[in-house]
Amino acid sequence: MESIKHIPLPERGTKLTEEQAMKLAISEAYKGATRVSPNPLVGSVVLDAQGGFLACGHHEFYGGPHAEVNALKNLSSAELKDAHVFVTLEPCAHEGKTPSCAKMMAKLPLKKVTFGLIDPNPLVAGQGADILRNAGIDAEVFSSADPKEDREIKTLLEEVCEAFLWNFREKKVFVALKMASSLDGQVALRSGESQWITGPESREYVHYLRACYDAILVGKGTIDFDNPSLNVRHPEINKKNKVVVIDGEAELLHRFTDLKLAQIHAASDVFWCVAEDMKENVEKTLKTLSIAPQIIYVKTNVGGDLNLEDLLAQLHLKGLRSVMVEGGAFTASSFIDQGLVNRIYMFQAPIIMGSGGSRSWTETVRVPTMKDKIHVKNPRYLTFGSDFMITGTF
Amino acid sequence: MESIKHIPLPERGTKLTEEQAMKLAISEAYKGATRVSPNPLVGSVVLDAQGGFLACGHHEFYGGPHAEVNALKNLSSAELKDAHVFVTLEPCAHEGKTPSCAKMMAKLPLKKVTFGLIDPNPLVAGQGADILRNAGIDAEVFSSADPKEDREIKTLLEEVCEAFLWNFREKKVFVALKMASSLDGQVALRSGESQWITGPESREYVHYLRACYDAILVGKGTIDFDNPSLNVRHPEINKKNKVVVIDGEAELLHRFTDLKLAQIHAASDVFWCVAEDMKENVEKTLKTLSIAPQIIYVKTNVGGDLNLEDLLAQLHLKGLRSVMVEGGAFTASSFIDQGLVNRIYMFQAPIIMGSGGSRSWTETVRVPTMKDKIHVKNPRYLTFGSDFMITGTF
Repeated sequence: MESIKHIPLPERGTKLTEEQAMKLAISEAYKGATRVSPNPLVGSVVLDAQGGFLACGHHEFYGGPHAEVNALKNLSSAELKDAHVFVTLEPCAHEGKTPSCAKMMAKLPLKKVTFGLIDPNPLVAGQGADILRNAGIDAEVFSSADPKEDREIKTLLEEVCEAFLWNFREKKVFVALKMASSLDGQVALRSGESQWITGPESREYVHYLRACYDAILVGKGTIDFDNPSLNVRHPEINKKNKVVVIDGEAELLHRFTDLKLAQIHAASDVFWCVAEDMKENVEKTLKTLSIAPQIIYVKTNVGGDLNLEDLLAQLHLKGLRSVMVEGGAFTASSFIDQGLVNRIYMFQAPIIMGSGGSRSWTETVRVPTMKDKIHVKNPRYLTFGSDFMITGTF
Repeated sequence: MESIKHIPLPERGTKLTEEQAMKLAISEAYKGATRVSPNPLVGSVVLDAQGGFLACGHHEFYGGPHAEVNALKNLSSAELKDAHVFVTLEPCAHEGKTPSCAKMMAKLPLKKVTFGLIDPNPLVAGQGADILRNAGIDAEVFSSADPKEDREIKTLLEEVCEAFLWNFREKKVFVALKMASSLDGQVALRSGESQWITGPESREYVHYLRACYDAILVGKGTIDFDNPSLNVRHPEINKKNKVVVIDGEAELLHRFTDLKLAQIHAASDVFWCVAEDMKENVEKTLKTLSIAPQIIYVKTNVGGDLNLEDLLAQLHLKGLRSVMVEGGAFTASSFIDQGLVNRIYMFQAPIIMGSGGSRSWTETVRVPTMKDKIHVKNPRYLTFGSDFMITGTF
């Protein structure tokens, strides 16, 4: 989920500019990436009266203390005299699972609080800042005098809590697409063979990404060909993820108990998406299964394939807030084609598979003229071993 | 042509390790990239008796002074007392267009000369080093005690004069392939439209690359659709390149004088490659032209298309030592398919063109199983604006 490189913590007392402090707060926020959903990722940095680094913190897990609390908790009143707190999101005004951060900070001898984004909830937006101002503390939305820095940091601030903002503003599931291709854009041979395109460093990062999203989504072809586990296997992460399978005509459902994913995941964590007109059929099949996944009945398009927008709406009703689509080629293509992808993670290995006998991840996508090409916005590049990865938004 | 980022010159007196000195010499060598062909790129760095940086130089243009001469020319005997000279290639033993570098250095009060590669010519290999040793100067091939650094630097040393080494060892034209694709590996829409995939920063770098090779090679489709100039347009480079066109059935030859490239290039700098059985036809066409390119008659394969190996052999006979293949999709595919590409420059833009209605650059390449995938070796990544470029060898 990181779109910036992690910034190492400065020594205590190191002078930071406001831009450096806010970037550090963003970098801190990402430390919660695998544990805060459906909450936003939030980070906070505290500078002393002279602008020297004092402490930082982040929202560590859902239901846990907010970033500001973690940043401030070990600092004395003397240290906080005229301190400047940076936080990526406006301090909360209301009591939720935790006390109000704005009220907590209002009692401290701070000089200023700079926050990255105003609370996206219009009903409480600005209230956190008002509580601080009423206590005589400056409270301002971040901005930089350097237009390039200003643009870059504001983009990063939106990105760090993009899933949360999308959920809140659109009431929809945030969709990430992860693909691993050759240099020539191929994701599998025509035979279906695809292991392995990328190297171990990329594959480990994919397991980190899996942990950043509520569920992994795949089409039935991937299940049929690879029989994958679709769980998080990362040396530093212990997380149970959910799985979504698209199997419009319920072709694989009768084999559910034989699938590797059924042995690894609780059946209630697996969402099996079928066409709504398959109901009768599916109910018969379910009677034959000793354990069964959750069934999602989805509307179909004119062509008979599942309506992916309805599918996502139903997953939202089931409480999912983000999914990572992992394939195969046809599923990826469909999500892109229907404009439903929020963020892409495109891993590429330095190999050529030849498009003469393989599958691209955009087979059903057609761009009539160059004017219509689809742009990946705010692209960033990272390397993993001899592979590289581009991530960006749509 | 650079596969490493340019290293800024250190202050005089800055202590450098042997590894740093050799990397700096490699970085210097690339400064001659657009002007030394068919000579090798060579760079040199001089450290004083204490290992402090004194000077550097590179082979600047074909026929000009060698790298060592340029590095040493402004240093006094006092400065050179016990100095250590690094040079990417063994100092020449023989007199050619310039006097022997080994003999010149043998007269200096140097302590040691470390060179990257032994002269590839077996008839003179080691002779430069012997001249130095006979004068009481240590002369050694570079090696590093750190295995990773050793491997990396040796790879860079081969890369910096790869075209020269290939020419010398194989008596063949060095072939670079430059492609610009979308993230999904597409290089043009089915209509042929492809302008623009990449941004201005990438395109400027392509003009630099054009200047690094003797000729630009394209297929007839590119000429027909784009009517390109195929010259070097770069703010800092003034170079006349040659052009190679593959037009097996001489379909475009009769329109030669109307083509933009014919107006820009001297006709003698354009090599028009046709099937040898088209000779009669071609000769008739030539009579109708007021200016005509050089005609290269090429053997054909069983399928009727030009035998690219023969084509390259004929270009070698014409004095060309390196070409950069720029397209289109079919031409690129053919060179890859026949294993004739030495280096790839793959630019990718953060856009999706959809493989449903466009062309990949590997359309005729087929990989039967994942074991057979084609590897790009020693891949390196650079970014240009919002695009990125991968370069590597085959």
